[in-house]
Amino acid sequence: MQRIRAFAPATVANLGVGFDILGLAVDGLGDFVTVEMSSHPGVEVVEITGDEGKLPRTPEKNTAAIAAQSVLKHLRASTGIRLWLNKGLPLASGLGSSAASAVAAAVATNVLFGETMTREDLLPAVLDAEEAVSGRHADNVAPALLGGIVLITGHTPAEIHRLPIPEGLYLSLVTPDVEVPTAKARAVLPEVIPLKALVHQTGVVAELIHALHVGNIHLLARSMQRDTVVEPARASLIPFLKEAKEVAYRSGALATVISGSGPTLCSLCLTSTDAEAVNLAIAAFYKDENIGATAHATTPSATGASIVEAL
Amino acid sequence: MQRIRAFAPATVANLGVGFDILGLAVDGLGDFVTVEMSSHPGVEVVEITGDEGKLPRTPEKNTAAIAAQSVLKHLRASTGIRLWLNKGLPLASGLGSSAASAVAAAVATNVLFGETMTREDLLPAVLDAEEAVSGRHADNVAPALLGGIVLITGHTPAEIHRLPIPEGLYLSLVTPDVEVPTAKARAVLPEVIPLKALVHQTGVVAELIHALHVGNIHLLARSMQRDTVVEPARASLIPFLKEAKEVAYRSGALATVISGSGPTLCSLCLTSTDAEAVNLAIAAFYKDENIGATAHATTPSATGASIVEAL
Repeated sequence: MQRIRAFAPATVANLGVGFDILGLAVDGLGDFVTVEMSSHPGVEVVEITGDEGKLPRTPEKNTAAIAAQSVLKHLRASTGIRLWLNKGLPLASGLGSSAASAVAAAVATNVLFGETMTREDLLPAVLDAEEAVSGRHADNVAPALLGGIVLITGHTPAEIHRLPIPEGLYLSLVTPDVEVPTAKARAVLPEVIPLKALVHQTGVVAELIHALHVGNIHLLARSMQRDTVVEPARASLIPFLKEAKEVAYRSGALATVISGSGPTLCSLCLTSTDAEAVNLAIAAFYKDENIGATAHATTPSATGASIVEAL
Repeated sequence: MQRIRAFAPATVANLGVGFDILGLAVDGLGDFVTVEMSSHPGVEVVEITGDEGKLPRTPEKNTAAIAAQSVLKHLRASTGIRLWLNKGLPLASGLGSSAASAVAAAVATNVLFGETMTREDLLPAVLDAEEAVSGRHADNVAPALLGGIVLITGHTPAEIHRLPIPEGLYLSLVTPDVEVPTAKARAVLPEVIPLKALVHQTGVVAELIHALHVGNIHLLARSMQRDTVVEPARASLIPFLKEAKEVAYRSGALATVISGSGPTLCSLCLTSTDAEAVNLAIAAFYKDENIGATAHATTPSATGASIVEAL
């Protein structure tokens, strides 16, 4: 095979209370990377589309190229690749945009070179890429790579756990047109928290994991919303967050949380009809406030990244 | 029925990383409370045995009497009870001694009055009793009352979750003869913790809940030992904790943690033979250090408190 095209999905990190430890891959929304062999060593970024010209073309600064380069290094490849990146995800939206590019590139490159590495083997390469843009966090890259809902307690395969996806879970993802830089979203977090808050947060995270295992979407929704540390600190970064949540609940959302560091809002719903209604309601609300918004109704993706073309 | 005798088991709170949110009931070790009708209102403490005369006989200060009184109040009983308490558990050992007395008393009193309350209904009564001696915590009373491994995220029934008990789990419980007052064990804890520690603790607690649900005892053992906040702060209160743990691991323990606020050490084992070996090894180690110790090999109790005699 001389040309491989891979897709990697958007991901919702945190799920409310699971700051830096939980992430969920979603269906149908994500980035595409195409790679082909090159006689020159290293990674050449041939073209990036869908980014409105905002992403760096320099291979050392582009997450897709960094991930691909890290895979090449691991494979001790003497040849290189040419890489096309097609962004389906908006940048800095809280949907794991950089992670999706990195994962698609790593998966495509691995297949181009005979698929000698497992998905788990690719984790260090995509973490290298993520580190270059937003710190070495696996809460977006792990679910984009492996699919499903993923618990991350470290960066070794034994510390990454796929959790059950409850049956009948639908998601509304609404991204208002506001900027929330990841660095700022980290800067507003408290440096220390009271021990009492630790007890509360460990309890509700435990409740969330229990809810996933027993398939109780109502309990999942309740536990997601019981975060007292991260989301309250970030609330001021997202205009009208409280009001948008109220709109969502009135339209059928069981829980509405900030996806990753925002500004995307992720709502849990029991039907696709509800997810569509929540999309429309939140988007209409923001429109009334003169803020545009894009919306997607989707479901969790059990599979994560996939190969979409191999020529 | 005019006379009811109830048993309530010892409990291991925290399970390492689950400070104030997790507790486990164990088999065969616990307190007995006998109650009978009295024409006088209120609770008369007739006799306490097994406590070496240390527990208060005044009903207002005795956890069994407080719990029984709280049940009587809930039932709007016009008559009272006479109460006998037989302590099977050592005091201030980290095995939920006060909780076991309170739970046995509440369960016995409820049955004496026709068992109109469910186990969940009895929770406020036993919390009243626990509050009088060590604060309003449910991590001992909930598992003693309900059995099994219990997650507590609040004090309403909807916030108390019974978790699966993995098959083939054996426990060694060794109590060295040292005093660790609960108040002191709370005082050594940090008032605030870094956000980074929150991420770590929520991750390992999530891993522990996942391990229970998938029945992976090795993962359970690993996650229990990854506490970086509570047990490190308390380590100095238990003489030779580090050495005792090493002895336990060499004898077959998969994990050894402080039970509740100590000094009891709870070790996870894969067989009853291993649990007995760990008991002997830790006890022998402490004997060499001129510290006595009592040891019990047991298993999780799925049932919690029970009626042992009804005449």
